[in-house]
Parts: sequence; structure tokens; C-alpha cells
Amino acid sequence: MQETPKGSRLHIAIFGRRNAGKSSLINALTNQDIALVSNVPGTTTDPVYKAMEILPIGPVMVIDTAGIDDVGDLGALRVERTMQVLNKTDLAVIVIDPEEGITSFEEELVKEIRKRNLPIAGVVNKSDTKTVSPAELATWRQMLALPLLLISAKTGQGIEELKRQMIKLAPDDWEGPQLIGDLVSPGDTVVLVVPIDLAAPKGRLILPQVQTIRDLLDNDACAVVVKERELKEALDSLKNPPRLVVTDSQEFMKVGADTPSEVMLTSFSILMARHKGDLETLVAGAKAIDALQPGDKVLIAEGCTHHRQADDIGKVKIPRWLRQSVGGELDFAWVSGGTFPPDLTKYKLIVHCGACMLNRREMLYRLAIAREAGVPIVNYGLLIAQIHGILYRALAPFPLAQMILEE
Amino acid sequence: MQETPKGSRLHIAIFGRRNAGKSSLINALTNQDIALVSNVPGTTTDPVYKAMEILPIGPVMVIDTAGIDDVGDLGALRVERTMQVLNKTDLAVIVIDPEEGITSFEEELVKEIRKRNLPIAGVVNKSDTKTVSPAELATWRQMLALPLLLISAKTGQGIEELKRQMIKLAPDDWEGPQLIGDLVSPGDTVVLVVPIDLAAPKGRLILPQVQTIRDLLDNDACAVVVKERELKEALDSLKNPPRLVVTDSQEFMKVGADTPSEVMLTSFSILMARHKGDLETLVAGAKAIDALQPGDKVLIAEGCTHHRQADDIGKVKIPRWLRQSVGGELDFAWVSGGTFPPDLTKYKLIVHCGACMLNRREMLYRLAIAREAGVPIVNYGLLIAQIHGILYRALAPFPLAQMILEE
Repeated sequence: MQETPKGSRLHIAIFGRRNAGKSSLINALTNQDIALVSNVPGTTTDPVYKAMEILPIGPVMVIDTAGIDDVGDLGALRVERTMQVLNKTDLAVIVIDPEEGITSFEEELVKEIRKRNLPIAGVVNKSDTKTVSPAELATWRQMLALPLLLISAKTGQGIEELKRQMIKLAPDDWEGPQLIGDLVSPGDTVVLVVPIDLAAPKGRLILPQVQTIRDLLDNDACAVVVKERELKEALDSLKNPPRLVVTDSQEFMKVGADTPSEVMLTSFSILMARHKGDLETLVAGAKAIDALQPGDKVLIAEGCTHHRQADDIGKVKIPRWLRQSVGGELDFAWVSGGTFPPDLTKYKLIVHCGACMLNRREMLYRLAIAREAGVPIVNYGLLIAQIHGILYRALAPFPLAQMILEE
Repeated sequence: MQETPKGSRLHIAIFGRRNAGKSSLINALTNQDIALVSNVPGTTTDPVYKAMEILPIGPVMVIDTAGIDDVGDLGALRVERTMQVLNKTDLAVIVIDPEEGITSFEEELVKEIRKRNLPIAGVVNKSDTKTVSPAELATWRQMLALPLLLISAKTGQGIEELKRQMIKLAPDDWEGPQLIGDLVSPGDTVVLVVPIDLAAPKGRLILPQVQTIRDLLDNDACAVVVKERELKEALDSLKNPPRLVVTDSQEFMKVGADTPSEVMLTSFSILMARHKGDLETLVAGAKAIDALQPGDKVLIAEGCTHHRQADDIGKVKIPRWLRQSVGGELDFAWVSGGTFPPDLTKYKLIVHCGACMLNRREMLYRLAIAREAGVPIVNYGLLIAQIHGILYRALAPFPLAQMILEE
């Protein structure tokens, strides 16, 4: 598994008093899916940094502030420790214990966080065992001047809504995983297969291709750019096999045949799916295609309202492939631009476009809404790869995603 | 010498009666500079196709219509031959003999050419031996409804003006030489050295780099894209040396040192200079830097009016380099956007920007105006290469340009 560099992980600090349920919340945020947790060693009273995968947010660094959760006021030492944590924080989560309510700890903490202009998500935990009256909740909200979400780390209630809020609160410049740079080491060679069809504008390459070349250069790697027809020749011209071959999805079959099986192979749309959204959630969505039944409702969502062509992928091709895969008729609905329809729960699958007109935050937000509604979501590129039986090989650089597909 | 593919050469048909001076005109269009002429075999009465270099127009195909220049009306056979030639013509030049004036030959010819909507340049030759009165010239112009230029193929009078007119008349879709595709064979590998400086926009490559990659793919070649720091490693990773290394001008010294001397090396700006304008004329301009004297007037011309930075290349860097090269002060003038000042003859050198905002036709037109005024013209990229002593090596793929620099 390639480690996502620390710099591109969203740093989430979890604050709360000793019995508020910080650890349970961290488990709840990750446990429902496969979580890769690697603790950074520290003393028992120092904050612990945990590199994790929170779906659909992606790779994050959770800062468990066990050392500064003592009862009572923030003493000088704990203020200092809090400030050290906040220096590295992109987003703060405050966990409130409904048995205790708001104390000076939470009030001073919010003050400290606000001084640094950091976003805060506030949750009242233990909704499964302690009922909070609307009046009480309103008082607490007013005391902190903060919306508070009722959750249960134990039952999972409100967790997906919290994730959605976290995505909304994440800073604008938070980028998430790199396109390809984290998959290579300096000096590596990566072969990019770029088919030139008649529709490709003269003298240009499409943006994901340019972004991939640039990301390789930024990471001291070398990009070998070639058409599918010359791939074999290009591979033969190298003294050593490349680190990775990346192809346009439409040439996956030919490129797969020409690439030695020991060389990792993926596609530009998989790289973009990870960069723009959350690969694992989309892979789980691709897997859900197998469970579709004739008559199921499928929502096809596009991020923009482009001019549709006769063989439009969203209107024509994807419905055809899905019908063939299911072996019967499906009940399709379409949305484009704007947002999702209010009730998603009636759909068995959401198929989203590549989101070239959406930024990462907006795409993650949509993934979060789908997860909250419990509806699997996949994008065009992954759906195509899955239906053509090539998704597993194309996920070679992403073992976590491969595990989700295999499960 | 790489042959420019026939398709990207402007096809110029030269028509005229037997004694009008077609051959002299063809010589005059090419002889003043080095001309590469290769006759395509044909019978004596068939038109002869001559692949030539006419500066500053670039590689052209001149169609010498010796077989259809007989005296008198266009007979059926000659109409057929004319039509065959016109099928391949981008631009027609009619040479008029002032001893004969306008005959039915010229009138019918113009009619045939106009039927096909082809541009026509009309010249009255032999201005050195035969004086044509303004009244006579006006009558001829009226008869053909065509502007007529007085020239002498023998003395060269009016030839540069004719070239300028030819550029103006050339069809819009005439593209000239390829960026790089004509320098490679299918299966060739070309290494592109792309430095990433802090100013480079994130996630992007600049257009000449993208265009070069695309042109290589369009021509079944493979592009190895690498930063200057990883070039040595990239060259070592290849079983065979690449066909060519192309570098950003600013890294020429380092890339030159890391590229084996038997591998051809050039720069993106030289490729663009050839693609957008006329490499040989600009090389002659680069050579003229050596002849500059302190006090000489130098015109610095930019194609657009961009926002100038503190160390602007046109305002600051190029004047400094030229002063250092000359060893004294120079008298600089600047123009931007629009056109050249009316009197260019007072300048000893014109330094033009890379013309990223101008199309090929406009750049060629400016080169033609400079040539007409007898003023050498160079562009930024070639000036920098020449002043840093690397132009000769960077012209390795272009023997004609190398010859001009060496002369």
C-alpha cells in the first residue's frame, strides 16, 4: 500500500473530555469500512497521530488528543499542548458528553480554536443512552455559538451526517490525494498510453493526461507518452519495466494484453476518481452492480448540463451496459447540474459522471450524501471497467480498493 | 535534411507566356538565399513540381507550368493541363511580359483561376529593361481586375514585396511545417526536457510542450518527458539513444552537457520558430547580432501588449544581453501589438517576441516586411541561444539553418 504523504491528508483533531467518547468516535468514523490505522508513537499524555482512511473523505490524519482531555479548566500546560495540536489542525471536532453538558473546558477550547480561524464540528455523543431535550441542546448551541449534532458513536447514528459536515467544513485548499505522484519514487518511469482519436482536438492533450505528466515531473519521475499502437515498442525500448502503465479506459483491453502481467496497470479515470473523490466508496459502488435486479431504480447523475450527443454515455451507453449486465430492464432516472433529488433511498445504485466540472469537495459531498442514504455510488470510469471485467487489474496500485472489490 | 512533407508545403503555380520570365522569377524567389531544389521528373510539356525553400515563406512546392505557356488562346489540351495544375494549387502567380501586355491567354487564365476561388498574384516582369507607363499599367489592371506589381526577376526589384503579397494571399488553412512530426519516423523516441519552475502553473504544461507531445503521438513516435535533473537517468534507461532531445531554452547548457554529442539536440523555441515563422530568416537575424555596433538602433517588437514584469524579457533582459554582447550602449525602441513602425530601414536589428499570440501568417508577414526593408530580424529564443553560444548545436536537425549560421 502506497502511503499518502502526510501533507495531503486532512488533519482532523478530536477534542473532548475524558468520558465524552473520543476513541469510540474515531472507531465509528473508520470501523464501518476497512481502516488502515498506524499509530505514531507518543507518550500517554501526548496527542497521538493516526493515519487513517475515512470514507468518503479519504486519507486523513486523526489527532487523538488523549493528553489534553483532563477535567476542569485548561491549565497552562494543556493550553500549550492544545495550541501545538491546533498548529497542525485543518478541522477540529469537539465531542460533548451529554452527562456533563458544556463546561469551561469546551468554552475555552472553542475560543482557542476560533482565535486560529479553524473550522469546528460539534457533536453531542451517546444519543443511544442519554436523551437530550431540545431546550437543553439549544442552550448548549448558544453557549458555544456552534451547531451541535446528536450522534451515537456506539450505534453509528449521525456518523455519516458528521462526515458530510466535515467535508463541508474542510478548508478550501485541502486537496486530498495526489493524482499519481504518491505512487512513484524519484527516478521511476511511468508509461502513459494516450490514444489519439479523430475527436481529439488538434495539437492538444486532454487535461487528465497533462495533469498526470505534470504530477510525475513534480515528483521527479519520467513520463513515457505513447499511443496504444506503439506501446509494445515503447516497453521494449526500456532497459527495465516501468513502475506503472496508465491507459485511457477505452484502450484497456489492448493495453492490458501488451503490458507484462508483473507491471502494474491502471487508467486515467481511476487516478482521477481517487484524486477527485474517494476511490474506495466508488469501488464499493462498482461492486454493487452485481447485486442489481431487473426493475431496480438507478439514478444517473451528471455534474454539468453538457450538450448530449446521439450516443451519449449517460443517456445511452451506460443504460445499455447496465441492462446487459443485469439481463433485464432497469428503471432509470437522470439528474444533471445542481444537486441530488431529496429522496435517494429508493435507488439501488447511483452512477455519477467523472465530475470534470466539480471540485473535489463537491464530489466528496455527493459521495457523503449517497452514503448517508445508504445507496451505493459509482462513476462512469469505474462502471465501465467493472462491466468489462478489468477493474480488478486496474486497481493494482490501490490494494485497499482491490480488497473492497474482492470482499 | 528532413524533407518537409508535400502536404504542408504551400503549392505555388507560376503561370505566364513563354517569354514572360517564369524561370527567372522562380530563380529570383529562391536564389538570393540557399535554395534546395529537387525536380520531380516529368515530360517537357508537363508541369514540373519543384520542392523549394522560399524565405521567409518556408518550404513550398513551386509548379513550373512550362507545358501550358504556349502563345495564343488556351486550347482544350492546355485548359485540361491548367485545370490539373489548379487542382493542386494554393496560390497562383501570373507573370506578364510587358512587351506583350495582356493577351487572351492571361484573361482566360484569370477566369479559370477565379472559377476555383484561388488567390492570384499578378506581376509585370522586366522592369529593368521595359518601362511601363502608369496609364498602361492601369489598363492592364482593369483588364484582369487584378493589382499588378512591377518587378524585375533579373535585378530582384519588387521580389520581396511579391513574397509579402504571397504570404497575404496564402489560404487561411495553410499551416507550414509541422512542429516536430517531420523530424521523426514511426517508432522513434524523442526526449523532452521540461523544467518545472515555481512560476509554472500547477498541474499544467505550457502549450508548446503539449503541442510537441501531441505531434509526436500523431506521428507514431514516443515522447519521454522528464525534468532536466532526471535527464541523465532517463537517457540511461533507454536501450538505444533517442532520435532527438528537445529542451526548454533556459536549460540548454545543462541538457547539452548531459546529452551525448551524437544525439541531436534542439529547443522548444526553435521548433516553434520554424512552425510559426521561418527559421532560416530568424537564424540570419541571429547571425546579424555579431555585426551590431555601439549606438546602433534596435527595434524590440512584441506581438501583444502583456503586463510587463520587473525583469521583463523584452524591456530588461534582452537589452542587457545585447549591450553585453556589443560592449556598449545601443539605441532601443519598442513596439507592441499592432504593426511595425512605417520606417524600419533605420534599424540595424529587429528582435521579435516568440509570437505566441500571432498566427503563422501574421508572423511571416512581419518577417517579409523586415526583409523588404533589408533589416535582419531574430526572435527572443534564437537571440538567447546565439548570445549563449548554443545556437549552432540547437540547429542540428536543420542543416539549412546551420549553413546560414556558419556562412
